[in-house]
Amino acid sequence: MCKEACDGEIARLYGPGERGNGSLYDLILDYPLRGGKALRPALSIATCLGLGGHLEAVLPTAATLELYHNAFLIHDDIEDESWWRRGKPTLHIDHGVPIAINVGDAMLSLSLQPLLDNVERVGLGPALRILRAVAKMTRLTVDGQALELDWVRSNSWRLNDADYLKMVELKTSWYTFITPLQAGAIAAGAGPERMEPLESFGRHLGAAFQITDDLLNLRGDPQEYGKEIGGDLWEGKRTLMLLYTLRHAEPKDQDRAIAILAKRRPSPDGEELTDLLDRLAAQGELSQSGRAELVARLQSHQPSECKSISDIRWLFELMLDVGALRHARDVAATHARQAAAVLATLDWFPHSRHRDVLADLVDYVHGRTR
Amino acid sequence: MCKEACDGEIARLYGPGERGNGSLYDLILDYPLRGGKALRPALSIATCLGLGGHLEAVLPTAATLELYHNAFLIHDDIEDESWWRRGKPTLHIDHGVPIAINVGDAMLSLSLQPLLDNVERVGLGPALRILRAVAKMTRLTVDGQALELDWVRSNSWRLNDADYLKMVELKTSWYTFITPLQAGAIAAGAGPERMEPLESFGRHLGAAFQITDDLLNLRGDPQEYGKEIGGDLWEGKRTLMLLYTLRHAEPKDQDRAIAILAKRRPSPDGEELTDLLDRLAAQGELSQSGRAELVARLQSHQPSECKSISDIRWLFELMLDVGALRHARDVAATHARQAAAVLATLDWFPHSRHRDVLADLVDYVHGRTR
Repeated sequence: MCKEACDGEIARLYGPGERGNGSLYDLILDYPLRGGKALRPALSIATCLGLGGHLEAVLPTAATLELYHNAFLIHDDIEDESWWRRGKPTLHIDHGVPIAINVGDAMLSLSLQPLLDNVERVGLGPALRILRAVAKMTRLTVDGQALELDWVRSNSWRLNDADYLKMVELKTSWYTFITPLQAGAIAAGAGPERMEPLESFGRHLGAAFQITDDLLNLRGDPQEYGKEIGGDLWEGKRTLMLLYTLRHAEPKDQDRAIAILAKRRPSPDGEELTDLLDRLAAQGELSQSGRAELVARLQSHQPSECKSISDIRWLFELMLDVGALRHARDVAATHARQAAAVLATLDWFPHSRHRDVLADLVDYVHGRTR
Repeated sequence: MCKEACDGEIARLYGPGERGNGSLYDLILDYPLRGGKALRPALSIATCLGLGGHLEAVLPTAATLELYHNAFLIHDDIEDESWWRRGKPTLHIDHGVPIAINVGDAMLSLSLQPLLDNVERVGLGPALRILRAVAKMTRLTVDGQALELDWVRSNSWRLNDADYLKMVELKTSWYTFITPLQAGAIAAGAGPERMEPLESFGRHLGAAFQITDDLLNLRGDPQEYGKEIGGDLWEGKRTLMLLYTLRHAEPKDQDRAIAILAKRRPSPDGEELTDLLDRLAAQGELSQSGRAELVARLQSHQPSECKSISDIRWLFELMLDVGALRHARDVAATHARQAAAVLATLDWFPHSRHRDVLADLVDYVHGRTR
């Protein structure tokens, strides 16, 4: 029901409506209507209703947070060269990179108006608090992404669980949990003193969520999970498991792992073309010097050595050997329990089916860790 | 002076500051500090000061509009496959597409906070009016871009000057002229009754500006202009000149022009590789069947026929033949004169060196038309 209400609101706020030129606005609705979990709107709506607010007070904000998230998914899919999202080709595979960049930008740009219209909907003070919460969220998310990219780019690895958790708080927890919870509470009229406990709840939930998401990226079933498997390893993302592995491996394995991580990810195109060139050369249809020239030409766009599938397999085996996956599941479970503990202390949040949504979410995230 | 103040403000608001992870924040400053015209901040600052406001009241808003513009430039350069911007390689050429997308998103996302901080700086009412102006600007800009993309994608051509001017008002005038002018006026305490004349001034100036920009794209000196020449024709952008040409060409030329516009733009990579394959085949280093297989493989990513340099030259000759460039210069000059006429009616805008900035800008845009 909540998902349907949110889909309807996204279509009302951001869809073609009476605008003539349909195609961009159709594409804005593409990802949101593919049937994702709509986690962020669910959190906002459950918190607002659970604290005695009305659905109309929170719905545009919830829809806007979901749109924001989907804009980043579209751009992330380009950046990560992902081909598949929620059971369909990614937007840039379907429509090309230029249109996918443009659609994401349009979604980010359009999100300001509904938050300004909150002034009439929930009053000036709460509307400004929601705007400030969103501004803070975007700043922290950008900081978290910058930190993660920097670690990959500089091939950093002397990082511990606390470093990883700080990065995840910035990159994930604010944007997926803390701000949706706080925005829902503000829309229900909750005072500033309610913000800190919600932040604490969202921080623990975010840590558990991101760690399990990273675990699923390594091991999950493509049918169920809907994303490319092992993509994080190819990209060299500093997950809790990878950092634990680097800290706990034998020195020679450590060196080899760091050397692998320094290699770039191969582009799918380059791989296939190289295979084709090899075959033509083997069949005598291409001279060796011609092959060398073509390979050099192709590699001029990918100057450094690429990770190979055996590199990735070796890294994964090393993770298993040092117990990194078990460690990550333990840390995720601890944070899920801490989230449940914080939720239990919120005596100002009456028991109701709305509060149950939050408790169920903790269980769901916890369940994914097993 | 105004440019320096704005650069300093951008660095203060959006630069690395005390944040540890420098590289993303360094890249945010890359385009703004390359020494563009900083047209939008100049308009905001001149209007604010000219109407008796203080520099501090408008500076963060001016810097934010400039940042917004630079975020779109970064993403446009990816979408247009541009290699060169303000005398240096584009950001995605220097740092790769993923980082360039990310940096642009970060810039768009960070722009909310300074506009919210306007509440303390210029008061609640003006701050909200500036926020609403920016929200309107982004919505109209998105609509304009969507319209332009739709015209290219659907190969539309039964469009007249009025259609083009409406698209330009949406795509360019609000974002480059009207909103910067209005935001400057609001920061100076101007009432809502001042908004309409500024909108009219900015609309005419925007039309003259975009038409001359399109003319320079066809004919300009790369050294001076700093962008790829003729890129609009390769992309099939519906400029005033192109639409005039399509309307005024002989039927058989019309058909040929429309057929050329239906072809896609070749990717620079594909072109070079095809040349290399031709040379290898000519030298006997590559068999004809091997060449055919490689060409097919390369073209599987560009299934439809590509525009050729002789297509582009023919289109340009046709434009000259029908007098499209002369017509465009006339329309641009008319709008520049109308902008000057509107400016002359603004009796509430005292004569000063700040008002002279606006008058000089009209002259500058007018001068570019010759």
